[in-house]
Amino acid sequence: MIKGNLKGVFAAALTPLKADLTPDDQKLVSHGRWLLANGCDGLAILGTTGEANSFCLKERIRIIETMVEAGIPGKVLMPGTGCCSITDAVTLTQVAVRAGAGGVLMLPPFYYKNVSDQGLCDFFSNVIQQVADPRLKIYLYHFPQMSATPISLNLIEMLVKKYPDTVVGMKDSSGDFDNMKTAAKNFPGFAVFPGADDLLLPMLKEGGAGCITACANVASRQAGDVWRAFHDKKDATAAHAELVAVRKAFQKYPLSAALKAAMADITGDDSWLTVRPPLVTLDKAKQKQLFDELKAIGFALPKAA
Amino acid sequence: MIKGNLKGVFAAALTPLKADLTPDDQKLVSHGRWLLANGCDGLAILGTTGEANSFCLKERIRIIETMVEAGIPGKVLMPGTGCCSITDAVTLTQVAVRAGAGGVLMLPPFYYKNVSDQGLCDFFSNVIQQVADPRLKIYLYHFPQMSATPISLNLIEMLVKKYPDTVVGMKDSSGDFDNMKTAAKNFPGFAVFPGADDLLLPMLKEGGAGCITACANVASRQAGDVWRAFHDKKDATAAHAELVAVRKAFQKYPLSAALKAAMADITGDDSWLTVRPPLVTLDKAKQKQLFDELKAIGFALPKAA
Repeated sequence: MIKGNLKGVFAAALTPLKADLTPDDQKLVSHGRWLLANGCDGLAILGTTGEANSFCLKERIRIIETMVEAGIPGKVLMPGTGCCSITDAVTLTQVAVRAGAGGVLMLPPFYYKNVSDQGLCDFFSNVIQQVADPRLKIYLYHFPQMSATPISLNLIEMLVKKYPDTVVGMKDSSGDFDNMKTAAKNFPGFAVFPGADDLLLPMLKEGGAGCITACANVASRQAGDVWRAFHDKKDATAAHAELVAVRKAFQKYPLSAALKAAMADITGDDSWLTVRPPLVTLDKAKQKQLFDELKAIGFALPKAA
Repeated sequence: MIKGNLKGVFAAALTPLKADLTPDDQKLVSHGRWLLANGCDGLAILGTTGEANSFCLKERIRIIETMVEAGIPGKVLMPGTGCCSITDAVTLTQVAVRAGAGGVLMLPPFYYKNVSDQGLCDFFSNVIQQVADPRLKIYLYHFPQMSATPISLNLIEMLVKKYPDTVVGMKDSSGDFDNMKTAAKNFPGFAVFPGADDLLLPMLKEGGAGCITACANVASRQAGDVWRAFHDKKDATAAHAELVAVRKAFQKYPLSAALKAAMADITGDDSWLTVRPPLVTLDKAKQKQLFDELKAIGFALPKAA
């Protein structure tokens, strides 16, 4: 029914860094394995939470290849490969497809504002035609608050008509539930992944494909519980409530920094606190405040194996 | 008085493309030479008008090197070298400095919205420290309508205090004249270049350094007339009025596409019409409308030598 092979709970995986701000390959792989063993169906590496746009092309290529070389199956990966330049988007998408990625998450060329749907359609068409690989499955990345370049329903319609087997879904981080419902309803089989945990269950009821969220980095078990309860036709209310409470606590802070602080706590490894500027590490006072809030809602950060 | 060696009229130079959407080196150089021979004091290559963010790093490096190898003096160049990734910004800035660029125009890491001034200061500090070259002169690029990541007066203050010999000016494309005046007044010697032709003369009267504009691609003679009249203490009113009228005609259309249409007319070479998606070529009806408007204000597109 739903197009593509990617369904379920995806973590918008964090990218652990070394002190020199380069990605820490070993921690990256460990984190990915830990997520897959704890409720995640897949990993959306190189998304916003993963600070993808803070890395150069070589670093992004290496992140994809590192995961696959370490034995993480390509088919559970949905790397972010959208770039402002067609040239870069083609290069990175080819790497992802050749690594066996189940799909790619594609931002629009986000530097450009108020561009026409025709221009955006031309952009994606150029990428698809230059990648020229039938294995390519694109999930459009709609995040107007961050990209400031929306992916309209009209653009989706243009693209699914032109490339029905390639443009198979979207991550919708707009928070606009009506937009997600309309996309799932209007485009048969189009896989809609909300970018927020609180919309996982509501969207599953509307034919959604799962979710891709930042909080799944630490609350993958809870998100997985929602997903399984729904599919087993069991009551998902309690798991949903638990997941929503976690989301509410984290979203008071810049997400990547707050989740990295949580990972430092989970692993006992403070190097997890490092982010690339312009992001800043969550200060000690805010870390304490966040952890107190998590305790107050009864959420104990899981411990790494 | 004004810091840095770059002053006067800079064209935010267009990037001519071949049919396969790659930059046309030969036309790029010819266009640069033509601008310098017709009123421009310098060339802001790889800016927004030049579609810089539509090119991969290799293509951008080649554009800088092509200009210098063709004999255009590095000292008149102000290439755009800002990128979302510190890694890319460092690489490109090093290329520009080694090519002898008089300065670089630096966008903030524009994917990231609502980031703190501290985070942005950390970003620029990392770039400056990694480039590690005393020849580096940075002009900050404030274009909130396009980057959606503003460069606040507070951030400028942080940076000029920390790097008084390196962070020497800004291009302000916000259209906010008060912001430009305040920057020129508050930070002694800080070189303020408005990004709009109509603010060249008003800002010169407030101690501005010149202008960096899209329209200077075709109206460099008029902008140069304003600059020279002001410096010779002659009446700049007529040249200013002529320049403003040209700006008003062009700004009704997406600037890169409209200016490329004008260049196709100037050179008689329709390959100038090509833009990279998500931009779209100005359609024939709009081209006619634009050219009719230019005629109506008495502006004849210049002819290439």
